[in-house]
Amino acid sequence: MKPNELINASGVLLTDQYQLTMSQLYFRMGLHERKAQFDHFYRSNPDYGVHKAGYTINAGLESLLDWLDQARFGQEEINYLRSQKSSTGKQLFADDFLDWLKNDFDAKAITLYGIPEGRVVHPNVPLHVVEGPLAIGQIIETGLLNKINYQILIATKAARIKQSTRGQMLLEFGLRRAQGLGAIQGARAALIGGADFSSNVGVSHVLGFPPKGTHAHSMVQVFMGLGEGELAAFQAYADIYPDDCLLLVDTIDTLESGVPNAIRVFEDLNRKGHQPVGIRLDSGDLAHLSIKAAKMLNDAGFPEVSIVLSNDLDELVIWQIVTQIQEEAERYGVDPESLIKRLVYGVGTKLITSGGDAALDGVYKLVAIQQDGEWLPTLKISENVDKILNPGNKRVWRVYDERGKATADLIGLYDEDVSTQSPLVLRHPTNAGKHRTLSPSEITRIEKLLIPVIEDGRVMVEKEEIAEMRARRDQDIALLDPGVCRLMNPHIYHVSLSAKLWDLKQSLIKKALPQES
Amino acid sequence: MKPNELINASGVLLTDQYQLTMSQLYFRMGLHERKAQFDHFYRSNPDYGVHKAGYTINAGLESLLDWLDQARFGQEEINYLRSQKSSTGKQLFADDFLDWLKNDFDAKAITLYGIPEGRVVHPNVPLHVVEGPLAIGQIIETGLLNKINYQILIATKAARIKQSTRGQMLLEFGLRRAQGLGAIQGARAALIGGADFSSNVGVSHVLGFPPKGTHAHSMVQVFMGLGEGELAAFQAYADIYPDDCLLLVDTIDTLESGVPNAIRVFEDLNRKGHQPVGIRLDSGDLAHLSIKAAKMLNDAGFPEVSIVLSNDLDELVIWQIVTQIQEEAERYGVDPESLIKRLVYGVGTKLITSGGDAALDGVYKLVAIQQDGEWLPTLKISENVDKILNPGNKRVWRVYDERGKATADLIGLYDEDVSTQSPLVLRHPTNAGKHRTLSPSEITRIEKLLIPVIEDGRVMVEKEEIAEMRARRDQDIALLDPGVCRLMNPHIYHVSLSAKLWDLKQSLIKKALPQES
Repeated sequence: MKPNELINASGVLLTDQYQLTMSQLYFRMGLHERKAQFDHFYRSNPDYGVHKAGYTINAGLESLLDWLDQARFGQEEINYLRSQKSSTGKQLFADDFLDWLKNDFDAKAITLYGIPEGRVVHPNVPLHVVEGPLAIGQIIETGLLNKINYQILIATKAARIKQSTRGQMLLEFGLRRAQGLGAIQGARAALIGGADFSSNVGVSHVLGFPPKGTHAHSMVQVFMGLGEGELAAFQAYADIYPDDCLLLVDTIDTLESGVPNAIRVFEDLNRKGHQPVGIRLDSGDLAHLSIKAAKMLNDAGFPEVSIVLSNDLDELVIWQIVTQIQEEAERYGVDPESLIKRLVYGVGTKLITSGGDAALDGVYKLVAIQQDGEWLPTLKISENVDKILNPGNKRVWRVYDERGKATADLIGLYDEDVSTQSPLVLRHPTNAGKHRTLSPSEITRIEKLLIPVIEDGRVMVEKEEIAEMRARRDQDIALLDPGVCRLMNPHIYHVSLSAKLWDLKQSLIKKALPQES
Repeated sequence: MKPNELINASGVLLTDQYQLTMSQLYFRMGLHERKAQFDHFYRSNPDYGVHKAGYTINAGLESLLDWLDQARFGQEEINYLRSQKSSTGKQLFADDFLDWLKNDFDAKAITLYGIPEGRVVHPNVPLHVVEGPLAIGQIIETGLLNKINYQILIATKAARIKQSTRGQMLLEFGLRRAQGLGAIQGARAALIGGADFSSNVGVSHVLGFPPKGTHAHSMVQVFMGLGEGELAAFQAYADIYPDDCLLLVDTIDTLESGVPNAIRVFEDLNRKGHQPVGIRLDSGDLAHLSIKAAKMLNDAGFPEVSIVLSNDLDELVIWQIVTQIQEEAERYGVDPESLIKRLVYGVGTKLITSGGDAALDGVYKLVAIQQDGEWLPTLKISENVDKILNPGNKRVWRVYDERGKATADLIGLYDEDVSTQSPLVLRHPTNAGKHRTLSPSEITRIEKLLIPVIEDGRVMVEKEEIAEMRARRDQDIALLDPGVCRLMNPHIYHVSLSAKLWDLKQSLIKKALPQES
């Protein structure tokens, strides 16, 4: 795809065909500018096969805002839509509708509430709420889901991997194994969620980060192919990057060749007044090899240089590596905690694609429509009660308990004031028999999660630095119960409905079912 | 990300940092224009957890060519690289190297052999071979892997899903659940591998396809919210799209509400001289519901309208649906084969993300470097014998047996003529004790798979239509042994080494190991 084609395919046409055909229907019925409300939420935390997340990290809002900015029907888009035919060969989209798209469609002519990027969020909570003309809300659905679902997935994975490293540096190395240009959003999300740096030069450039990397096996192979050896390759690297010398030591044999050669080069560097940076292990039993390599480096007088680990890592593999080091290192005369503190992790495939669930099941559902200035809630019935929509124009509050920890997210209606409800009733979202009540003494704080991002077409938020999102992430994770953060089998965080929303939902279900059957 | 930022991040900077630092090293050593050869191949067919592919569909070459075209170091890229600092604050990339990147780097100044898109391919076979200046080969590595690995993954998944449909129409619906802008390459790959159409408007536009879609639950919800019902929504849709009327029937209750309402609308359409298109089922037991819905449609005089199925489908779910229909339909007075022939499948998440392995393990390895006009093969040792590189400048042949079926892919050296070898020896790639010999009477054809795509900087191939790639796919799949195509537990297709390549590899392993240890 050429650059102009990429711009075409990633602008307003980054949508599903049915959004346009439905919008033409609304237009024809005079409903296209009718105010409607859509909620974006996801249904379950990412599942990784043998383990599952207990929370997610919100991400993608800025990408959405940038996309709304460029989502316009210019002449090229209009010409393409005009060329589409019905099955009988007639023009599929009528000229008056196309004129409306061209002249009156403004993707930002909405009110958007959102939860800031970097915050910890939970299933079924509206993360983004769009209020605006029905046809606009419909046409931006697909782009919103495309921008945000994947970024939440990857920010969450990054947070989990970072947790498993116990605070050590995490590098995002996934560009070559990413799902195409998803790498671009994925690297951004990884940097929000837990990665400290990325090897991706373009994304690092755009986001203002220094890209990170070491060298590849190919560099050593070049020297070997030309009849020289690994040592010559390492020496060349050290000559050119004397203050950034990080050597990949497994091209031939990690302990027999790579580490001894690296040590010789590090000794040379030391003599010339430079501080070597470290080694990278990319194959074999990384826990065992890192212990043996650490011992060799320590004995040679390099107890400080980093040991970068890579090769199909994820949070469980890293957890296992750390545990194995704790159990095994002393037997080889290596202090486990010092070793753990010198490790750096480079994670590729399983960070940039998430591993396990390759998609977040985020959806975008119509929840209310205006009639004569009044919001009428809308419902979608499902045989699966967990999938019946929470209807109406809603807001979300986070409730902090007497320890100051987040204890529940409460979904209520936009005109409720949950801060004055005493005791506060938290209804289970589907089970009529289950609820919690919290007295004022059990609550230290109630926080509104959705903030106005766009109000009547006006963007209300400033462009943020990734650092601000990371600060929110750290703060929110610290406020979770440790059981919710657990990598395996986490506690389920409570997401509850207000009594008023529960009653509305039940009355709508009653009304919908017999009326239509 | 704004459009200009997207262009920045998807151009030549779509690379890993270490490609640039290694290239500076080659530059400094005078090796940057030394001719080198890199092979792109993957190691194992995609694994989907409970099942695994027996082959893959090659895809992505045109995307690679488009990217090579735009991969240039302009002033913005140079400025960014110049701004990068070493750990001591010095300029990381020296001005002479940056001048070379700016003035002399030409991503297409290579010779590229490739296997055409749409062809069936197999593990360990070089799919793309780059011969060219060492630094160029290195810098384009990441982009090549990013363009091609994911597209092979998705084209393969699409082929499998198409196979499970028994030739029925397959629609790609994944944009909302895709890994960000990966959707763009993913939809293209799906269209090559097995999807007939996509809902993705932008990609359809760029590739010249009509996008496909129906309508969403939200359209019905709008009418319900405004006090009207599903029938009113269907009638409105039929009024506006009388010749393209495909109705989603599960917003309230598929059999009690959706299908009866659709039939009423179809009857109206018939009276007005229009042919209704079909219904879509998006929840519940799709096999059972499609039988019941078919019965109702048949009884109402609509035995021809399509039944579109969607909701988290993949090849096994579709296989199961088809099997269940074969077992169950007659009991309800529905002919199973007629029903199977009116089904259409819309597949989202598990097509665009692949499901199971979310990445193909494609790699790009230095296999030879020139010295004094001669190719010196290079090796990469690994503890895992399957991962030891096949060294040297190589070519690939497909051998067809006496039935005319593809029986093996043979990897040999570039200066071999396997067509004259009699009998033809096919060595197992790692097991010294295993080989096959084929006498001339057992061989109907030997085909060269790699064709020249770029020769010394000149592109040798024309831009292709997706239809040509699909024709290759169909032809190649028909030439596979049915056991290799099997969705579950497929036969392993033979990928073999020529005797000459085997001998070279063994001699290099022997030479490399003792020399370095």
